[in-house]
Amino acid sequence: MTGPAQIAAAKDKTLFTPGPLTTSHTVKQAMLRDLGSRDVEFIETLRSIRLTLLDLAGVSRETGYEAVLMQGSGTFGLESVIGSTVPPDGKLLVIINGSYGERIATIAQVLKIDIATLEYATNVVPVPADVDRMLTADPAISNVAVVHCETTTGIINPIEEIGHVVKHHDKTYFVDSMSAFGAVLFDFEKCGIDFLVSSANKCIEGVPGFSFAICRRDSLQATEGWARSLSLDLLAQWRGLEQNGQFRFTPPTHVILAFDQALRELQAEGGVEARAARYRDNYEALVARMREMGFAEYLSPELQGTIITAFHYPNHPRFQFDEFYTRLNDKGFVIYPGKMSNIDCFRIGNIGRLFECDILALLAAIRATLSEMDIELPCS
Amino acid sequence: MTGPAQIAAAKDKTLFTPGPLTTSHTVKQAMLRDLGSRDVEFIETLRSIRLTLLDLAGVSRETGYEAVLMQGSGTFGLESVIGSTVPPDGKLLVIINGSYGERIATIAQVLKIDIATLEYATNVVPVPADVDRMLTADPAISNVAVVHCETTTGIINPIEEIGHVVKHHDKTYFVDSMSAFGAVLFDFEKCGIDFLVSSANKCIEGVPGFSFAICRRDSLQATEGWARSLSLDLLAQWRGLEQNGQFRFTPPTHVILAFDQALRELQAEGGVEARAARYRDNYEALVARMREMGFAEYLSPELQGTIITAFHYPNHPRFQFDEFYTRLNDKGFVIYPGKMSNIDCFRIGNIGRLFECDILALLAAIRATLSEMDIELPCS
Repeated sequence: MTGPAQIAAAKDKTLFTPGPLTTSHTVKQAMLRDLGSRDVEFIETLRSIRLTLLDLAGVSRETGYEAVLMQGSGTFGLESVIGSTVPPDGKLLVIINGSYGERIATIAQVLKIDIATLEYATNVVPVPADVDRMLTADPAISNVAVVHCETTTGIINPIEEIGHVVKHHDKTYFVDSMSAFGAVLFDFEKCGIDFLVSSANKCIEGVPGFSFAICRRDSLQATEGWARSLSLDLLAQWRGLEQNGQFRFTPPTHVILAFDQALRELQAEGGVEARAARYRDNYEALVARMREMGFAEYLSPELQGTIITAFHYPNHPRFQFDEFYTRLNDKGFVIYPGKMSNIDCFRIGNIGRLFECDILALLAAIRATLSEMDIELPCS
Repeated sequence: MTGPAQIAAAKDKTLFTPGPLTTSHTVKQAMLRDLGSRDVEFIETLRSIRLTLLDLAGVSRETGYEAVLMQGSGTFGLESVIGSTVPPDGKLLVIINGSYGERIATIAQVLKIDIATLEYATNVVPVPADVDRMLTADPAISNVAVVHCETTTGIINPIEEIGHVVKHHDKTYFVDSMSAFGAVLFDFEKCGIDFLVSSANKCIEGVPGFSFAICRRDSLQATEGWARSLSLDLLAQWRGLEQNGQFRFTPPTHVILAFDQALRELQAEGGVEARAARYRDNYEALVARMREMGFAEYLSPELQGTIITAFHYPNHPRFQFDEFYTRLNDKGFVIYPGKMSNIDCFRIGNIGRLFECDILALLAAIRATLSEMDIELPCS
């Protein structure tokens, strides 16, 4: 009866990753119940979650928006929107400046959806005028997709400016706000977003197990018959929730109870603004001291969001990332490898139940690790 | 900070449903941790789960089988297998005697997979000779699917006899063992199964959030390029697990930790045989006393499995199912509505952390409810 899950250290490692995250005890404790999926209490929880998500987005049912929960990780949510909202003869323009933009294109390709791409280097933000040119040149394009915070680097893309162009051309606009929603301030309606996807265990600090879409109701209702999957049918999932308040297929009840608690804790913290401020504090504490130690960020500071930061490998002969990672891990600090094929970076996330004290503890561990590895970096 | 999830009775309701189930406290407590998805402990947990699932199926990697975990409810697992293992020009024969057979056909239709169906009444088991006739008559059929325990009624279908026919014709055989796997004894290899799907929160008594497929490795490897989805690509998911022990996309770490604990508790109970015996005890205690009260099962006893039982509405002018359900619910007992359009039944499940004492408590509540509704049934 002992095994890996039973042999736990006194304290779990702190996760400086973009998910799974370190969540609060109370969020996890909300999972200590078995609720039936048709139970009135569970249905009321779902209803409350859907309204709160709209509220976080600054929209409402009255102004024409709907929140739809979907089983599976964030990628499942992306595939649900892509597969359900691009018409059968439609064409999707994917704006790409990192792996998650590429993933959207890959999903569409697997679904045999016609695509066009607009590609940039990973340290460059997309240019709205380029989108305008593409949409003018190719009237077959029906939908446009962009990533909000590209987790590959932590860059924040100009979703409002791009949205103006997309709406000027009267196209359907999809924003992958996976790692931004809940901690990055933006005006949903001003951006002209038709569909936005995020997941339970990013900035809202729930545990992983489902994603959600915030949809303009008109745009959603226009997708009748377009879904390329039963499980991931966004319109059918919405209709099921509307009809009887339930998921069409067994929901991850425990994960949803945790998310409900996470939403309460977000509200108690002061909402999106307060959470954005905490992540900013984490980010500033991190970056200032990393620079002092001699590390350099991959992105220019004006492009960098506060969700996750990519740092160059230091230019030192004894720096081996695997050793650095493992030594930090052994000290109880989990950082994140890079995701670019051509540039050697590692990443440190600021999201989850992390405070400045956690960042300072990580920085002390990094300092100790460099010393163990006998690496002295030239101060910046 | 109070809300539906906070206003909990001293004890949650007992769930006599086919999922979400009543699970053990220790299974839920296993979720009180945040593990990174690349953490060596989490990877080891996944590895152990996959081997234990093969062991439960009575097969092994050495004999050519693989277990693949997939995010989402059971339906996501079904769609993953259907969408990934029927060749582009293939045709799927779906054997149907209930809603879950129908669901397999619906999934295939949405995926634009050519299908043939062999349909029976919900109280009749499929006839292997009919399958033989269909396969002889239509050589375009490449895959055959059948439900093991059709949760619509609780009927157990003859998967071994059907398997012999399917293998005689050298077709790919898919068994939806959602509500049977882990508590119904069968010989996986003798059945000739290529792909079997079940979910975390059926007879293994985990919490909902993922499903799994047990696959003949040769059959899985033959599916290169067939997947109709990125998220639900079974072969890619397997390859990801093989390559680095990880999910391709963020796994539901907490739900997986709960499942690992549930597998340990299944083993501690004495494995599939002991669990089957407990469910049989539950079933027998239930049916004997329901009959004494004047209720009649929908199925003939020789067709009835011990997972879930459908009972006819009693023929009494004051019996209203909604009132009956609500009064039981208010007493803390959650039963399950029927799922047949033409016959009025309700269902009672025996699976989950339920023992004879729970069944007896339910029966006492049913007796009290009938008395409150002033219903006296003629004893059978």
